[in-house]
Amino acid sequence: MHVWGASGYAAAEALRLLQRHPFVELGALESRSHAGKTAGDHFPLLRTSGLRFDGPGSVLAAARDGDVAIVAGGHGEALEVVPQLLNAGVRVIDLSADYRSDASAAYGLSEFEGGAIAAAQLVANPGCYPTASLLALLPLASLDARPLQIVIDAKSGITGAGRNPSLGALYAEVSGDVRAYGLDGHRHQAEIERRLRAYGMEADVTFTPHVVPLARGMLACVYAIFATPPAPGAVDDALAARYEASPFVRVLVKDRKPSVAAVPGTNDAELRVDVRGCVVRAICALDNLGKGAAGQAVQNLNIMLGFPQESGFDDRAVVA
Amino acid sequence: MHVWGASGYAAAEALRLLQRHPFVELGALESRSHAGKTAGDHFPLLRTSGLRFDGPGSVLAAARDGDVAIVAGGHGEALEVVPQLLNAGVRVIDLSADYRSDASAAYGLSEFEGGAIAAAQLVANPGCYPTASLLALLPLASLDARPLQIVIDAKSGITGAGRNPSLGALYAEVSGDVRAYGLDGHRHQAEIERRLRAYGMEADVTFTPHVVPLARGMLACVYAIFATPPAPGAVDDALAARYEASPFVRVLVKDRKPSVAAVPGTNDAELRVDVRGCVVRAICALDNLGKGAAGQAVQNLNIMLGFPQESGFDDRAVVA
Amino acid sequence: MHVWGASGYAAAEALRLLQRHPFVELGALESRSHAGKTAGDHFPLLRTSGLRFDGPGSVLAAARDGDVAIVAGGHGEALEVVPQLLNAGVRVIDLSADYRSDASAAYGLSEFEGGAIAAAQLVANPGCYPTASLLALLPLASLDARPLQIVIDAKSGITGAGRNPSLGALYAEVSGDVRAYGLDGHRHQAEIERRLRAYGMEADVTFTPHVVPLARGMLACVYAIFATPPAPGAVDDALAARYEASPFVRVLVKDRKPSVAAVPGTNDAELRVDVRGCVVRAICALDNLGKGAAGQAVQNLNIMLGFPQESGFDDRAVVA
Amino acid sequence: MHVWGASGYAAAEALRLLQRHPFVELGALESRSHAGKTAGDHFPLLRTSGLRFDGPGSVLAAARDGDVAIVAGGHGEALEVVPQLLNAGVRVIDLSADYRSDASAAYGLSEFEGGAIAAAQLVANPGCYPTASLLALLPLASLDARPLQIVIDAKSGITGAGRNPSLGALYAEVSGDVRAYGLDGHRHQAEIERRLRAYGMEADVTFTPHVVPLARGMLACVYAIFATPPAPGAVDDALAARYEASPFVRVLVKDRKPSVAAVPGTNDAELRVDVRGCVVRAICALDNLGKGAAGQAVQNLNIMLGFPQESGFDDRAVVA
Repeated sequence: MHVWGASGYAAAEALRLLQRHPFVELGALESRSHAGKTAGDHFPLLRTSGLRFDGPGSVLAAARDGDVAIVAGGHGEALEVVPQLLNAGVRVIDLSADYRSDASAAYGLSEFEGGAIAAAQLVANPGCYPTASLLALLPLASLDARPLQIVIDAKSGITGAGRNPSLGALYAEVSGDVRAYGLDGHRHQAEIERRLRAYGMEADVTFTPHVVPLARGMLACVYAIFATPPAPGAVDDALAARYEASPFVRVLVKDRKPSVAAVPGTNDAELRVDVRGCVVRAICALDNLGKGAAGQAVQNLNIMLGFPQESGFDDRAVVA
Repeated sequence: MHVWGASGYAAAEALRLLQRHPFVELGALESRSHAGKTAGDHFPLLRTSGLRFDGPGSVLAAARDGDVAIVAGGHGEALEVVPQLLNAGVRVIDLSADYRSDASAAYGLSEFEGGAIAAAQLVANPGCYPTASLLALLPLASLDARPLQIVIDAKSGITGAGRNPSLGALYAEVSGDVRAYGLDGHRHQAEIERRLRAYGMEADVTFTPHVVPLARGMLACVYAIFATPPAPGAVDDALAARYEASPFVRVLVKDRKPSVAAVPGTNDAELRVDVRGCVVRAICALDNLGKGAAGQAVQNLNIMLGFPQESGFDDRAVVA
Repeated sequence: MHVWGASGYAAAEALRLLQRHPFVELGALESRSHAGKTAGDHFPLLRTSGLRFDGPGSVLAAARDGDVAIVAGGHGEALEVVPQLLNAGVRVIDLSADYRSDASAAYGLSEFEGGAIAAAQLVANPGCYPTASLLALLPLASLDARPLQIVIDAKSGITGAGRNPSLGALYAEVSGDVRAYGLDGHRHQAEIERRLRAYGMEADVTFTPHVVPLARGMLACVYAIFATPPAPGAVDDALAARYEASPFVRVLVKDRKPSVAAVPGTNDAELRVDVRGCVVRAICALDNLGKGAAGQAVQNLNIMLGFPQESGFDDRAVVA
Repeated sequence: MHVWGASGYAAAEALRLLQRHPFVELGALESRSHAGKTAGDHFPLLRTSGLRFDGPGSVLAAARDGDVAIVAGGHGEALEVVPQLLNAGVRVIDLSADYRSDASAAYGLSEFEGGAIAAAQLVANPGCYPTASLLALLPLASLDARPLQIVIDAKSGITGAGRNPSLGALYAEVSGDVRAYGLDGHRHQAEIERRLRAYGMEADVTFTPHVVPLARGMLACVYAIFATPPAPGAVDDALAARYEASPFVRVLVKDRKPSVAAVPGTNDAELRVDVRGCVVRAICALDNLGKGAAGQAVQNLNIMLGFPQESGFDDRAVVA
């Protein structure tokens, strides 16, 4: 088990999970920027991990045929390294957007693509916005009707913007503010629409991502507008059928509410759905670095290697 | 100019504005809980105000016929005190929800009800959610078509919950969390629907209020879904026509985004509207204690007394 | 293993740790206010725990001779329940301040009182401020000289104030503020001075506790002022000697800095000490709910029952 | 009145104050990075200012003999531009550290150097840490005795680190953390010691700056350790004598506490001093961008031009 690219929040979270994984041994941890340095110096939550970053080329040098590597580079970098790894027989879970529309990759939405993931050489791990949105929407594909319009209003913690310093991610800019962004077409919107189509849900999507003063976490409110009111029972049944066997997706009863505070550090998603006339409202809470990135990557790793899906997730983490 | 009830955040904000108002002199500041105490001890931002709270009955005792009083009690308290004040000839701006559906009160949405407000004995000041939602939606009433469905997804700072200590408003419960609430029918939803009807906009409304880790501020995203695509030009024209003379509502061009950080301490609202097929998306940012409460109350005071609307708002406040 | 009192943050953290403890089985979880309710409804981080609170009297009814109970009531409540438990042969770890100056209780500062804790019927778990301060100061007791003056300047997350709603703990009061409190004598100051005396360190203590905008965590800066400069080597040696065998206290080299972000959800303390002329400056970071409360309680439980000290702490938690 | 350098938080705060200053007209606003752009696009709190940045050389071109310019460049840049401005007869208030130890500049601690400031061609505006520390310490210079040791433990909002994106200033790194820094000698320590010497207070200084999760604000706790106990009355008298005429420095009575929440957006400092045996503890709260930077710069401008010191500060700002 190797990790390529280790300067970001998602990579650090993957390392945090993998160091305790009962069936996985960490191999090469390749990082151009941090080569030779200890993980604990760069990430407080890896302080006691004892991990140290390796230099360029270390994953290719260390990987054997059949090994799995998580690639956690910036968007664009994967286009270079992933083919090299595949050629060397390494199975890849790529956290970037580079292969999410590529037919040669399995789309790593674990609850819906388990079979393809298990067999894949390359898994394109979904983004945090698509994961939250699709977990809420895809069960509706089993209803008789299709929504006319879909509105996705999602609120994200700032770690979703990565760890490269930028003005918009500064404490003094995020604190005290709530703002929508990407209003003229966010990369994730196309990813969501593509997957909806793959499940037979052609619909106009209006997608509004927001940054809120939060380090970790995501809450997505999805509104599916139908021509005629769906039966609440049918919607509840669709949800239950899809997730009753899932160890990670919790469908909440109506008097509970999804809460970002319930999921940090976990691979969990909380989901609450109600039907109000022609509108199905589905609210999904998850950790953008957990189920929205590194957590789902480890879940996919478990699927690829035949481990129980919960492996490496047996603890409950802490909200600071 | 008197203030009844002074233990909450909105009352403190009203006092902060009124103490600098060029045409207003503060009279009685009635507070049961803080009688005899200085405002600076209870509200850091009133530290240097020199204001002191008066005891029960002081507004009635001090008010003369034609005076204006802002009533800032908890919901329910106004039902008792407002009739007494009206009987004494005092004109009232009530911040509570008690009179918002009462035909004897003018609804204090300043940009739409200026005439009624100017003549009113009693102004029911709108809530923060209705203010943000209606500023975004009501200009659409001049379009040829009516929306089929309206989705309102609003994010509020926690001062909206008031200053009475409650578990859900504790720092350790708000920090690190984003959560929807009031999913089975928030009081503000009925207020919004009632006003929409008053302007000829019958539509199903799905309203989802959220608490985000923010002391002050509100961002409301409103999605109006039409049967056929409205002309973007018609929507822009409707907005411009409604707000071009407003000193407080800024309609932003498309490459700007409403930001909560641009409005704290002001009576401003930032508004950005785009049309995506059949969906009109309108995003409104305001200060829940400013335009969403005390700011609009002072604006209404200016309207009632014939002062320029901007009176008392000539400064730019600070985001901490 | 029982828990008495379960409405606060420290109790919830204890349950989070205990449910995964490899050698401990949870028995009665007594709570007056939450009896019959699930822990997951009250504490997001216990969402998936499956724990449910029991009613009054349940710990006494369930406990057998030799069992251990953590008592997590408010200050004052322990005076009533602890004697009953001790009479029933139950060994008690009390999180309150009630027994911290009581000669019949072992003082639960694990790294210094291990022998007494192992043999104790009653352990008075230290407060978070004393834990951070004493971990920094007590190693200096082995120096030849005694400090003339000790200054403790400590910054705490707001969970230290408990979960009972109070004005000063509201999000809108903590956010955007930093404030000192307890300036005329904080309860913890006497606790610190008492323990210093017990180790032969009579000194005037000036203690300034602060609340900072943080849910969890504590950073204490301790300044010990001597008449003549201590040898840096002697101070470093004293620290190393005291903590080299400790699994939880990390003495950092000089180019690293203790960070609250490195410890949430753990029982760890980070410590950095330097000598500047006559002044020894020691900085200690810990989680006020971890090593400062529930973590140390579980560590003491391990000591009392002869388990390895690290039992139940094998994971790395998450900073939200 | 001109401003050179306008990309940072302090420059924006200066513009916010100056645009409302009753006796000042804004001239050239020189900015290399933002030339031609509007201030409102870069700083939310200047949204409605209507200000626009000018290009390189604009201050020199616009300034006339006797004009005042605030120079708000990064540390080092002032060494280049300030001599050019002085040569052109422009009086300069420099916010950087470049001239703070230069004998040709007046040190801009307004309450102590008013005479020199009034006559100066060049004012070196103090840093936020020195301002808070010296306001607390310098009144003690009038006591009979000198402290043996001075400990300064100061907590700063992250805007003190400037607006250039850096890893340590990211929201996800500041939120949930409290950390000390500059432990091996912060630039501000030398500035503090130099000024103490200038007032006859030779003492060993131990200075520990911290970053806390706060955008704006500073709380400095200063501990002056004497050989024998100073008389509390003498200390109180020294404070009162120094600040009773100051419109900005508030000496609080003992049962009040300085609070960062009481000062954002103002030029105020709150100060509380007590004597505990040989230790004088002085706590000072101010806005690091206000009295700690731009506020004091405007106060100095008022002094230089003979305006009342309060000019431009007549409002009360808002804590978000």
